[in-house]
Amino acid sequence: MERNERGVTPQGEDFSAWYNELVVKAQLVDRGPAKGTMVIRPYGYRLWELIQADLDRRIKDTGHENAYFPLLIPESYLRREADHVEGFAPELAVVTHAGGKELEEPLIVRPTSETIIGEMMAKWISSHRDLPLLLNQWANVVRWELRPRMFLRTTEFLWQEGHTAHTDETDAMRETMLALDIYTQVARDIAAIPVLPGEKTPGERFAGAARTFTIEGMMRDGKALQAGTSHYMGTNFAKAFDIRYTSGAGRLELCHTTSWGMSTRMIGGVIMTHGDDKGLVLPPRLAPHQVVIIPIGRGDQGEQTRTAAHELAARLKSATVRCHVDDRAQLSPGFRFNDWELRGVPIRLELGPRDLQSGTAVMAKRLGDEPKQNIPLSSAPTLIPNILEDFQTFLLTRATRFRDTHTTPTDTWPHFTEAVSTGWALALHCGKPTCENDIKTTTAATPRCIPLEAPPETGRCIHCDEPSAYGKRVIFGRAY
Amino acid sequence: MERNERGVTPQGEDFSAWYNELVVKAQLVDRGPAKGTMVIRPYGYRLWELIQADLDRRIKDTGHENAYFPLLIPESYLRREADHVEGFAPELAVVTHAGGKELEEPLIVRPTSETIIGEMMAKWISSHRDLPLLLNQWANVVRWELRPRMFLRTTEFLWQEGHTAHTDETDAMRETMLALDIYTQVARDIAAIPVLPGEKTPGERFAGAARTFTIEGMMRDGKALQAGTSHYMGTNFAKAFDIRYTSGAGRLELCHTTSWGMSTRMIGGVIMTHGDDKGLVLPPRLAPHQVVIIPIGRGDQGEQTRTAAHELAARLKSATVRCHVDDRAQLSPGFRFNDWELRGVPIRLELGPRDLQSGTAVMAKRLGDEPKQNIPLSSAPTLIPNILEDFQTFLLTRATRFRDTHTTPTDTWPHFTEAVSTGWALALHCGKPTCENDIKTTTAATPRCIPLEAPPETGRCIHCDEPSAYGKRVIFGRAY
Repeated sequence: MERNERGVTPQGEDFSAWYNELVVKAQLVDRGPAKGTMVIRPYGYRLWELIQADLDRRIKDTGHENAYFPLLIPESYLRREADHVEGFAPELAVVTHAGGKELEEPLIVRPTSETIIGEMMAKWISSHRDLPLLLNQWANVVRWELRPRMFLRTTEFLWQEGHTAHTDETDAMRETMLALDIYTQVARDIAAIPVLPGEKTPGERFAGAARTFTIEGMMRDGKALQAGTSHYMGTNFAKAFDIRYTSGAGRLELCHTTSWGMSTRMIGGVIMTHGDDKGLVLPPRLAPHQVVIIPIGRGDQGEQTRTAAHELAARLKSATVRCHVDDRAQLSPGFRFNDWELRGVPIRLELGPRDLQSGTAVMAKRLGDEPKQNIPLSSAPTLIPNILEDFQTFLLTRATRFRDTHTTPTDTWPHFTEAVSTGWALALHCGKPTCENDIKTTTAATPRCIPLEAPPETGRCIHCDEPSAYGKRVIFGRAY
Repeated sequence: MERNERGVTPQGEDFSAWYNELVVKAQLVDRGPAKGTMVIRPYGYRLWELIQADLDRRIKDTGHENAYFPLLIPESYLRREADHVEGFAPELAVVTHAGGKELEEPLIVRPTSETIIGEMMAKWISSHRDLPLLLNQWANVVRWELRPRMFLRTTEFLWQEGHTAHTDETDAMRETMLALDIYTQVARDIAAIPVLPGEKTPGERFAGAARTFTIEGMMRDGKALQAGTSHYMGTNFAKAFDIRYTSGAGRLELCHTTSWGMSTRMIGGVIMTHGDDKGLVLPPRLAPHQVVIIPIGRGDQGEQTRTAAHELAARLKSATVRCHVDDRAQLSPGFRFNDWELRGVPIRLELGPRDLQSGTAVMAKRLGDEPKQNIPLSSAPTLIPNILEDFQTFLLTRATRFRDTHTTPTDTWPHFTEAVSTGWALALHCGKPTCENDIKTTTAATPRCIPLEAPPETGRCIHCDEPSAYGKRVIFGRAY
């Protein structure tokens, strides 16, 4: 009864239902009142804070500074870059009234900040000595969503957006790839998602970008999730906003700009990369609680195990383990076990009267084939950090194996359609947008990226048999 | 010439002009395109990050958890608490169109989040075991401003808002005072602002609150700045949003709620508490750069001092000093000295070829009567942290002395009007809103707070001669 109440639809039965039920039951989010908005509850927000802390450190270590730009952008700003406004127009939320009056010019709730930051860059940059200008912003953005999905596509989401200006293409492209590399590291090293970095095909570029790069993760249903993007804008925004500098030779030149973003979508990626039918599985480096200790027993014995649990927690915290004691005496041990399984805690320590007598705790890991084992209370603070690191590595290895066994090089159309129904296909493609569209209509698969690292190869397009483009194979898959 | 370009209007000539020019010239902010919005530049945003880091730690240490609630709130939510909507209606920004269509119900860009958080609390709380519920949110809010002023009153600002629910008044009031105490500590210990904590008179309460508490700082023009507020809501929002719990005795009871906020306004407080005619003066605990090292010299000698400056900076950073090397060789030493004086860096170290030979640097503090002094390069990392701590203490002592010498107990109306023209008056008051209004109309002064700590005293109202209220003196002053 307790079990069923907390349970979720199995992944194999309906992956979408599994996800939608789990994010709510694990208390990560709740639905907001306005269409497609979400409330991020403390357990979910803590995940975001841990991603933020790591990503922010990397962004600062590479010379970027945080700043903050206004939420409300005059409508006319967006119109200055033609591709940009075309891409975003259908998703905009518009403030028409404020302070009790109708505004002369409507204000857009930012869907992204290229335009307003472009306007300010033009003001701040005059000489080549002002370059590169390396800015980052942590902010909320609003894009009206027709088919919202918690974390993955919400009307409002949280993100960071980097915006930089450079003297030339070489420097701007170096920056674009630096940001992509930071994202790859955060995804792999912190979230244990073995993402594939690559370039988007022209049809999948960001609105206004000259080149768009992405990191793509494979979810446990075989679909792809774009988990971060980095754009080289060329001089498109510099022209639209007049971002110019005087070169060493005294000439007035256009800047080359970039932008790059990673968002709360990443949390959706963590859930769908590692989760299973019992619930979330959180990588230790992101887990709000890396260890949950559950004292067991009633009356005096319960009091003793409770005290011992808090003592152990204090020692684990000194060893920098994020630790929580679940001493809700009104709930059965079994209910509490299931609860923290559902919420994805990597390690559970059970502490009953008999364990206490023998100076041990029963350790259960969230994943793996090993049975429960006894762990001495005295050495727990030394052992646990290593066990957590091993668990982190195990998750990355497992996800990499899953991705690799679900990625199929293919040269025939029937084989291609089969491959993209359960994972990714590695195929040659002609590069034509119309052919991309045909493939999408037939199979729901889109080109996810042209991987940065792939052997050179040419031949015929998997779909239309025209000569292949890009000089290497493209990753195709269905996507979130 | 260089000096005049960077200079600002003296405080004594026009305090407002001094402030408005300084925040832009010190590169803290720039004006945003939409009315009353601001762009927070990296130097200004770093101040906010340092306030945030300290305040967030204190909020978490006292058991609160961060969460995130939607920016866009249905208009109908605000109407549920009558006082609340009345207070905020004139300041609201309204989204009427989104996704290319007119919305059925307009959405408000949050001016504060009591309503949407109240709605969610009602959903999350069922038993007394769910209480207290201690939440905090870091967010942007929008309140349409007719007379905007950078940091002090902007259409959009950044803040944290704590929202908590409790079983009864005692627990909720304990929380209200805890938050006020945290704010008092952050202002005093980090920003070196000796704020006065107290309760607002009924006429100055937050819209919807049963009791409002505030911390008030005195700016260098004698005006008051409300630097943080903490509200006990009674059961007002619990009634409006149906936030109820089942007690241990099985009865359904209304929760008692609180809310409390501190914002980017605090940065305005730092500027106006410590700044002078040369520019900003930043308390070391908040200074983005606590020390700036300026290498001096041309050619080979310039190269040597530059290298030595970076070596020294690395050693200071190891001693956890936030340190910056200004090696802009194209600018004269004098220009760079003035620049960092304007930007309020506590300690400047000048490093010329002769200093290098004698193994010392010339140290100039941003404030104080001491002349420049030589400091040995070898012991700088041990000496500087203490010098910074002394500087922090000096600022708090100076600001406390300024506040105390500009606060006047007064029992006669002529004396009162004189006192509030240059500082604060401590006076007895009848407590009637009409009398408060009369005082405001005549003198521009308002009751800032009824100080928490003040000796009991009763008598006649300073203005209308009716019997005094509150049992103690009230602080009156002009305010931002």
